[in-house]
Order: sequence, then C-alpha cells, then structure tokens
Amino acid sequence: MKSTVSEVDLARRWLVTVSAGGAVAGLAGIGVPGRAQTKSLPPVAAFKDADATIVHSANGIETRRSAFGTSGITDVDVLFLRNNASPPAESIVADPDAWRVEIDGVVSPRVLTVAELKRIGLASVAMVLPCSGNGRGFFPHKPSGSPWTVGAAGNTLWSGVPMRDVVRLLGGVQGGMRYMTSTGGETFPAGIDPKTVVVERSVPWTEMENAILAWELNGRPIPLAHGGPLRLIIPGYYGVNNIKYVKRIAFTPDETAANIQSSSYRVREIGQKGNPSQPSMWQMNLKSFVTHPSENGQTLRAGPLQVHGVAFSGGTPIRAVEVSADGGRTWHAAQFFGPDMGPYAWRQFVLPVTLQPGSYLITSRAIGADGSVQPELRIENERGYAHNGWRDHAVAVTVT
Amino acid sequence: MKSTVSEVDLARRWLVTVSAGGAVAGLAGIGVPGRAQTKSLPPVAAFKDADATIVHSANGIETRRSAFGTSGITDVDVLFLRNNASPPAESIVADPDAWRVEIDGVVSPRVLTVAELKRIGLASVAMVLPCSGNGRGFFPHKPSGSPWTVGAAGNTLWSGVPMRDVVRLLGGVQGGMRYMTSTGGETFPAGIDPKTVVVERSVPWTEMENAILAWELNGRPIPLAHGGPLRLIIPGYYGVNNIKYVKRIAFTPDETAANIQSSSYRVREIGQKGNPSQPSMWQMNLKSFVTHPSENGQTLRAGPLQVHGVAFSGGTPIRAVEVSADGGRTWHAAQFFGPDMGPYAWRQFVLPVTLQPGSYLITSRAIGADGSVQPELRIENERGYAHNGWRDHAVAVTVT
Repeated sequence: MKSTVSEVDLARRWLVTVSAGGAVAGLAGIGVPGRAQTKSLPPVAAFKDADATIVHSANGIETRRSAFGTSGITDVDVLFLRNNASPPAESIVADPDAWRVEIDGVVSPRVLTVAELKRIGLASVAMVLPCSGNGRGFFPHKPSGSPWTVGAAGNTLWSGVPMRDVVRLLGGVQGGMRYMTSTGGETFPAGIDPKTVVVERSVPWTEMENAILAWELNGRPIPLAHGGPLRLIIPGYYGVNNIKYVKRIAFTPDETAANIQSSSYRVREIGQKGNPSQPSMWQMNLKSFVTHPSENGQTLRAGPLQVHGVAFSGGTPIRAVEVSADGGRTWHAAQFFGPDMGPYAWRQFVLPVTLQPGSYLITSRAIGADGSVQPELRIENERGYAHNGWRDHAVAVTVT
Repeated sequence: MKSTVSEVDLARRWLVTVSAGGAVAGLAGIGVPGRAQTKSLPPVAAFKDADATIVHSANGIETRRSAFGTSGITDVDVLFLRNNASPPAESIVADPDAWRVEIDGVVSPRVLTVAELKRIGLASVAMVLPCSGNGRGFFPHKPSGSPWTVGAAGNTLWSGVPMRDVVRLLGGVQGGMRYMTSTGGETFPAGIDPKTVVVERSVPWTEMENAILAWELNGRPIPLAHGGPLRLIIPGYYGVNNIKYVKRIAFTPDETAANIQSSSYRVREIGQKGNPSQPSMWQMNLKSFVTHPSENGQTLRAGPLQVHGVAFSGGTPIRAVEVSADGGRTWHAAQFFGPDMGPYAWRQFVLPVTLQPGSYLITSRAIGADGSVQPELRIENERGYAHNGWRDHAVAVTVT
C-alpha cells in the first residue's frame, strides 16, 4: 500500500526552516481588516466570480487575496473593478469598431473610429493597473472611499495602437501643450455641472510616448466594465488615469479643471481639502504583497509552505523581493518565478519555508533596480492613497 | 467640423507599401478550407465563446483565426479543446486539493494530493500547447481526425509544482528508467481492453526537469475541459503528452504499450499503420501563422493594414519572423510586439503594410535562434500531424 506523504516528511526532506517563535508579540496594534462582507455583483460585472471577489459597491469590487493565482496574469473574471461614475450603456460594446475618439491639440485634429485605429499601429503591454486607493482599508482614520485591502490591483495584458503613432499621423502635438487630457464616455443628467462629475484626467504630455489606445484586455475585446470599447492605457500610472470608454484625448496647455483632477486624487494631509498644488495620483510607487498565505488570522498546520506574492512599480524593474515571517525582524531572499513580462508588469516571487507551531506575521518588501526599497509604513493622507507600506500588508497566521 | 481620417490619408502619410499586383496566380491549387461549419458547444465547454470557436465534435473545438487577439495569451473562453476520450465527471474539480496522483518508478513511490503538491514547490510557465494535428485540415488526402486549420493551439500560462521537486522529494528516479509515463483519469466501461483506450503517454524521462504538475491555467483553477484538477505540463511538447486529470506518473524502462503511444501519434507515410518504430509526436516544430487578416477569400478595402500573427517552437527562441503578401515571392521583416514570455511561449509579430487593389496571399515564416527556418511545405503523413508549412497557412485576400 502506498500512503500519502506526511507533512513532517516533506519538511524533513528538503525545505528550509525560517525562524519563528514569539515573533509577533506586537500584533494587536496592527491594522488587520477581517474578511470583508460582500454584496451582489452589479449587472456590469455579472460575469465575475462572486467567490473570488469582494463587492464593496456597484462601482467597487476587489479581488480576494486568495484569488490572484500564480500564473502572472489576473483573469478578468476576478479582476477588480472601480468606476468613478456609472458606466455608459452596454450597447457601446456591441460594435467596438464603430466607437469614435476625438484627438485634439495636435496639428491636424480628427475623429477616428476604432476600425481606423486598428490600421494605424499595434502594441501590447503587460501592466499592473491598481486603484489609487488600494490599501485604503488599512488606514486607521477610515478615509472615505472603498476600504480596499490588497485586491484593487491586477496584472493584465492590453493591446491597441500606440498613442505616439496616432499623434504622428495627425502631424504631432501642437506647440505649448504640456498635458494629455482624456475624457471618458460617461453621460450625466442635464443640470449637473459637468466639471463636478466628468471623468477627465490630465497627465504629462510626454506619456503619449508610452500610452496605448487599447481595445483588447487579456486577449479579448475589453468588456464595458473595464472600459471597452476603447480605453487609454498609460503603463505605470494609477487606474484613474487610464480613461475608460475614452471619447476624447486632447493635448492641452493646462490640466483639466474637472474636480477629479483638481481636487480628487490629490495626496494631502488628513483633514485637508484637495487642490491642484498637491501631488496628483500619477505614477505608481514600489510595492509588493504576499498572496499566500492569504487569510489574516488563519490557522495553518505545521510544515512546509510556499509563501508567494507579487511585486511591482511604476516602471522600475524589480531587482529583488525579501520575505519576512516574523513581522520584519528577519528577511529572506525570495526567488522570482514565471515569465518576466516587462517593467510595468508584476513579478511573482516565492519563498519555500517550514513553519513550526507558533505565531507568524508574513510579509514582503520589494527592492527596485534603482536601489529603492519598499517602505515599512504607510504615509498618512486624507484619502488613503498610494499605500505601499509592507507592515500593514502582512498576513498574520497561527501555526499549530 | 472634424471628419474621420480617410484610409487613403492614412496610407499616404506614413505607412510602407508592399508590392502587390498579380502575386497569386497559382492560388487555385492551394488548399484553402472555407469557413468551417460549427456544431453546438458540448457541456464540458459550455463556458466558451461560440462565436470565437469552431466545434468539430464534442471532443474537438478550435479557436477561429480571428479570435486569437493580440495580447499574447489565449483566453480560456476561446482556447481550443481536444480530448482523446470523454472527460471524467465534473465533480472531480469540485475539490481540486483532494485529487490524488500516484508517483511511481522513484525511490520512494507515493500517492500525493494536490494539497500536498502545493507545499512542495511552485513554478509557472507560458507555453504554446498545440494539438499534434493542428493544420490537418490543409492535407489534401483528408486524414482521419478533426480537420483543424490554425486554431488547435493557444498560448497559455500554467502553474503548479516542478516535477523535479516532486521527484527529489521522493528520492529520485529509480535506476534503469528511460521514460516518464503518465496516465489520465478517464474511466472506461468494463469489457474494453484498457490498452486500446487509456490515455497514457511516455516521454523521455529527462523531461521531468522541465515538466510541471499544474493546477492552474491563466490564473484560475484548471477547468475540467482543460485537464483540471491536475494536468501534467511538458513545455515544448504537443498537447497529447500533457496528460489531463493525471492520476499516475511512473518512471518506466519502456514506453507504455497503450495504443495512443504505440500506434497513434506516430508520423508515417500515407497508407501506413502506426508502430513504435516511427517518430512519436513529442517536441513541437518551428511554426508561425498570421492571425490578421484572418478570413480566406475576404475582401478588404485598399489602404493600410497591420498584418499580425504568432510564431513559436518547441523551445528554440524565435529570432525573426518574415511576412510575405505575394505568396512567398518576397519577404519583409516583421517586428515583434508585446511581452517575451519565454522560449515555450509564442511571440507576436506585426508588419504594417499598405495594400493597393489586387489579389494577395499573406503568410509568415519563422526563423529560430538556431538558424532553422519554417519550411514552405507540409510533410505528407497519414494522420496529418505536425503541419508547419507556411504555404498552406497563408490567407488569400482580395483588395478593392
């Protein structure tokens, strides 16, 4: 008779043991959101896997930490969703090639259909696309907005036409322009001041060298939920800048006056209002988190464990990732695994460990090719943006 | 008023013109399958996109050439399906971690559950997984089996435990073993000689260095249709070797006597029966095909066009891809685009062209890092295996 191999057996044979006991005495003070309650998936996202997601609202759905998988790409069925306004009617994705986008602030302004864009050029990029507020749920002052933990991010493949090819075709950018300002295709009831609701974002105009006007996500036409039929993709930039159902891209001398640019998505101290003098949520910072183990407060059996996770930045390649099982007292070099999909994608890392009974606080920190190191702590800010502190992203587990 | 830019306008401004006229005089003799008829999706593949696939049978579904997209990865909703026997009950994927696989021909044979495998190691690979008979539909002698054109292949991400880690844990391979022989979890009615129906394949035992016991496809648990809960993945090897619902992997001194090894999947001359002396369908050959334009006999408007496609091999990196619009008289260097996901993945290529009115035969040929070149012609063989000739894979279009 053949028996199944015991856990102890596995541990003894070849896995590395990490130090353990009493590591997380200070755990009580650490922000550890419980398993979030979840609502029903909204119609626009009805295709998603309810078991793999946490529904905060009709416009806010995050991926469970346990659902990222280890293949490198985040499947659309589990990918987070964040809309700043209700999406347009589903009918706009029925004939994607007919969608029109106006290009302005170039020498020869034009309206182009997606069918025409498809003839101009072709590119594809793997990129992490996170909500600016990913990790907001860890801020103790409870900022307004969805209390995301780790799941308002995903690594996805986008393809479409390079923006620079479109601009070249139209004679180049007009002189004096400093921003690329893009407008979403949402519609709003009459009587509302458009400036207060329009989804319109400005980024430095030079990002057109890297941006893609995309009609495809992970190999399929972009669903409405994720910005189909056409989405502006700016690799390395937070989600809000990647305008969905984009209907206009204009090179402009100034940033848009829309609220979503001028006062929202501004990093400022707690209690302050947003204004254009504060940093805007543009380029992503250096971050990593473990995806396994995934449940805070989880009890695991002693023995071997593959601790794995993801590391990413706004375009700086990831040089290394370190993992700690004792809340940051000691660190161990993790190994990368899976394809390297480029500087805007996340890299997967794994560290095989053997856990003895005890309490553990498991976390990771990324190190960039430029020598930058993911910080320990969040930077307190009013809206809970840009959280990349490794301490809050740790997973506490008990091993018996 | 802004108008949409005209096709001619696009052409004039910046795209390269390829030579055209009268290029495909000999077209009548070329095998050009029409748009295949399609049946209903079988229950095991009900989740797939019917519009993106061609259903040959309940166990044979291919991706339409137009449905591969340009993101690099083939979505599971359009991925081809080929089963050599009816799959087991859907219930086997309800609790993937409970699935058991027997490992034999090692120093310490064992049965391991998927839960145990997940503790042993972790790897992920991007790979093209083609049916051995992909392209069979182009053989004029109409071999038995599904008449696939280009769509019995896809580029996919698999993750699981490296087979070498499992073998090391179990003490290594026993002496004298030359093959890794793997058995699928299908069940068959009593009274049938198992040898005639069992899905059991042998490959050189050294492939265990590269193989993965996978529980995940494109970031999600492997669906039953694609071999969940556990599939043996051998990068660079034709689909049949990548055993679905794998229940046993044994290192053996000889190849299995199962028909699927001894007489099927053998390359032999037309009219011959299969036998073990003939080459087995193991490692993939060098191949490419265009994915756009995609419809044979299609009429396109004159103007610019992004000709794109995919190129792959059994592990040799792709050095270059050339595209011809005149059936192979002249060739143009295409550019790669999108992430390079490693030597087992396909690389995407694109060539921007401007088409004048006329007839075109558009095709591609891949060149390997070892200097090998994708051949023009198929090698005639009884079952229509391993077709990588660029001529048959061409797409004929008329431009007006």
